[in-house]
Amino acid sequence: MGQNAFDQKKNAILEEINSTDLDLSPKGTIDELCLPIMKLINSHRDMVTTSSCSGRLSVFVEGNKVHNKTVKVGGKGDGGKWLFVTHNQDEVLGWLNNLENKNTYFQPILTPNSTPGSDGSTRLILYKYEPFILHVKCRDLESASALYNVAMSCGFRESGIGSNFIVAIRINIKLDVPIGYVDETTDAYNLLVPLTYIELLDQLTFVKFEDNAKKIQYLYNKIENEIINHPIQNVATTQKKEVETKEDRRIRKRKEGLERQRRALEEKLLKQDTANIV
Amino acid sequence: MGQNAFDQKKNAILEEINSTDLDLSPKGTIDELCLPIMKLINSHRDMVTTSSCSGRLSVFVEGNKVHNKTVKVGGKGDGGKWLFVTHNQDEVLGWLNNLENKNTYFQPILTPNSTPGSDGSTRLILYKYEPFILHVKCRDLESASALYNVAMSCGFRESGIGSNFIVAIRINIKLDVPIGYVDETTDAYNLLVPLTYIELLDQLTFVKFEDNAKKIQYLYNKIENEIINHPIQNVATTQKKEVETKEDRRIRKRKEGLERQRRALEEKLLKQDTANIV
Repeated sequence: MGQNAFDQKKNAILEEINSTDLDLSPKGTIDELCLPIMKLINSHRDMVTTSSCSGRLSVFVEGNKVHNKTVKVGGKGDGGKWLFVTHNQDEVLGWLNNLENKNTYFQPILTPNSTPGSDGSTRLILYKYEPFILHVKCRDLESASALYNVAMSCGFRESGIGSNFIVAIRINIKLDVPIGYVDETTDAYNLLVPLTYIELLDQLTFVKFEDNAKKIQYLYNKIENEIINHPIQNVATTQKKEVETKEDRRIRKRKEGLERQRRALEEKLLKQDTANIV
Repeated sequence: MGQNAFDQKKNAILEEINSTDLDLSPKGTIDELCLPIMKLINSHRDMVTTSSCSGRLSVFVEGNKVHNKTVKVGGKGDGGKWLFVTHNQDEVLGWLNNLENKNTYFQPILTPNSTPGSDGSTRLILYKYEPFILHVKCRDLESASALYNVAMSCGFRESGIGSNFIVAIRINIKLDVPIGYVDETTDAYNLLVPLTYIELLDQLTFVKFEDNAKKIQYLYNKIENEIINHPIQNVATTQKKEVETKEDRRIRKRKEGLERQRRALEEKLLKQDTANIV
C-alpha cells in the first residue's frame, strides 16, 4: 500500500521516540507523565506527537544580557544556566536545602536595601513553573481542529493550530518570579526575597504540579472519548483520506479475485461434501 | 454585490469598534497602542480584529478560593478585585506610593516569619505583567496562516490558529508574582516581599512595556510589508474568494455590455471626428 508524506513523517518520529531516550531538554528524556497521552494520541492514524514537556519547576540564572547593545530580559544569553530543574512533584519542597554547594551559591540578603542596579543589565535568578505542553502534528485541518477543540474544552486555553497542522496544546498556569540576582563583582548569587517566600513559591508549585497532572488526565480522557473512541468521526476521516492509487487498486482487485476464486472453490467442495453426506 | 457571512461579521465588528468605546476589560476602552495595528489589519479584506490588549500591569487580590471544595490558584473567585491596573508605561514606577488608601491596604511585614498558611486557600495578591495580545478573525485558512506565520516570525511564539480561523497573536514576556496575601482574620493586605523587591518588579515591568511596544511596532511593519503591501498574495486571495452569484453575473454582464456599447459609440464618433479633420 502506498504511503503519503504524513505517514512517512509519523513513522520516522515514532521510530525516534522508540529508539532513543534523548531529547533536547536539560533533562534529556521524554517525561514519564507524558507517555500515556503520547501513546494514546499516536494510536490515531491522523496524529503524531512531535514534542512534549510534562511540566517542570526550574531555577535559572540569566546569562550576560548586554549583547550587541540590546538587553534581553529572561533570555538564556551568554553563560545562563540552570541551578535546579525537576519534573517530579516530590522534588519540589525543600529543593533549596537539597541544592549542592548551596552555601557557595546563595548569600541571602534580606534587607530592603539590597537590590541590583536598575539599568536592566542585572542577571536575575528566575524561579519558573512551566506547565504541560504538547505539540501534535496532524494530517489535515479536520484532525487538527478536532484535537484543538478538545484541548480548549479541557481548559488548555492557549492552544492553537500552527504551520503544517501542528497543534500546540498549552495552558496558562505559570509562575515566573525573580528570586535573586548575580553580583557581578563577586559572582555571588544573592536572594531578593526571604527564604520563607521561596517556601511559599514551592507550596504554590507543588499545587500546580497537582493541578497540571489532573488536567493531563482530563485531557487524556476527553481525547479517548471524543476522538479515539468516536467511530463515526474516525471512519469518516479515514474514508476521506484513503485515496487509492492505481497500484493499490490493482492489488485490491487481484485480492478480491483470489477471494472470489477461494470462495467458489469452497462452495464447490462443500457441495461435493454435502452430496457425499446426502 | 453579494455579501457573505465573513463580510457581514466583519462589518458588524467594525461598527461596534467605531460606535462604542466600551469593552469588557476593567479599563473599558480599546487601548491606544492597539489602534494602529488594528486599523492596519482591518484594512485587509480577509481579516478583522475581535479582541485586543496592548499589555498591562495589574495587581490583583484573589477571591475566596475554596468553592465547592475545589481550590483554584490565581482565579478570580468570589470577591477578587484589582488593586491597580495600568496600560500606561508612565504609571508603572511608583504605583504603590500613588495608591489611594495605601496605608489601609498594605501592612508590610518583612520578616521571614510572615507567611500565610500552606493549605492552598490563602488569598494571594498577585503582581502581573501581561503583554500584547490580539485576536483576528480571518476569512479562511490561507489568510489565517499568512497572519500566523508573520506573527511567529516576529517572535510571537505562542500564537496559534483557533476555531473559525481566529488567529491568537501571543508572546511570552509575562510576569506573575505573588507579592502579598490577605490576612483572613483582619482582612489586611500583608506584603510577602520587601518594598524594594516591588520596586525591582516595577523596573522589570517598565522594560517589558518598552520591549512590548517595540514588538508591536515590528509586527505592524511586517504585516504591512508582507501581507498588506504584497500585491500578488492579495490579488490571488481576492480572486479566489470572489464567488460570483447569478445576480452579480447579470449585473457584470450588463455593465460589460454597456461598456462595449460606449466604446463602440466613442470609436464611431472618433472616426467621424477624424474623418472630419482629415
